[in-house]
Amino acid sequence: MKILVAVDESEESMHALMWTIDHHLVSANEIDSLVVLHVQKPLELYAYPIGPAVYASAVVIDSVKKAQQQDSEELLIRVKEICRNKRIESHTVIIDGDPKEIICQTIDQMNIDLVVLGSRGQGMIKRALLGSVSDYCAHHANCPVLIVRPRKEQEQRS
Amino acid sequence: MKILVAVDESEESMHALMWTIDHHLVSANEIDSLVVLHVQKPLELYAYPIGPAVYASAVVIDSVKKAQQQDSEELLIRVKEICRNKRIESHTVIIDGDPKEIICQTIDQMNIDLVVLGSRGQGMIKRALLGSVSDYCAHHANCPVLIVRPRKEQEQRS
Repeated sequence: MKILVAVDESEESMHALMWTIDHHLVSANEIDSLVVLHVQKPLELYAYPIGPAVYASAVVIDSVKKAQQQDSEELLIRVKEICRNKRIESHTVIIDGDPKEIICQTIDQMNIDLVVLGSRGQGMIKRALLGSVSDYCAHHANCPVLIVRPRKEQEQRS
Repeated sequence: MKILVAVDESEESMHALMWTIDHHLVSANEIDSLVVLHVQKPLELYAYPIGPAVYASAVVIDSVKKAQQQDSEELLIRVKEICRNKRIESHTVIIDGDPKEIICQTIDQMNIDLVVLGSRGQGMIKRALLGSVSDYCAHHANCPVLIVRPRKEQEQRS
């Protein structure tokens, strides 16, 4: 079974990855069965937030781009470390685009059998965004979708 | 891992059960790890469809009740047969009530680790109903939710 886990900076997506590994959905003997995908939102969303009159200089764009790339790489280093500790082989991918569309495209392109998504993002707005990603994938992904939410007692504690 | 699969009369829910077994989410060595739940909608929904002036006689109610019970039992006999063929132990349960609420309650009461739901019901209206069950559970169930939809090519064929 080829499993895709989509991760972002949220603890919820890391929890989803850990849940997938801890419940033996990926076994240590299988190679290339776990793909971890991080989707980077297009830079324009950060560089030109409001209206046509706001322009970011090339230096600013370059700096934001570098920071974003660094964050993504650090995230996937953390993912690799988690997998290594659990003796699981993982293939990590970073793609730019709209998360919900990229996830569905990747499922088709890589012949994924199961996609795992964490539920609840970081802040209120990002939570709504991440929620809408899992809702979209539950209806449009061309494979079964596993939505992992922290248990209620964990939510209450956090 | 204790898995709950909710089934109704739809082929999609049987597909979800088969997918769960075929992808080794339940192993043949584990006892009591697969619970198959069928929720019977309350009889009032069938007996009194429109307005207060429509009454069903006791004989009619009794007859509908018996037919519903028989359908449920036949469904779970089919489930048991599928599981037996795959050498999987299953525990089957029939409960009356609202499917989405009963599924969430059963998860709490039986300490379920993962709930599996088929997506798309039988007719257009039932599909909408079943869809709303998986949407509700994805947001309210106190455990990870796996939504299994047939692949696009299977949908096109059917």
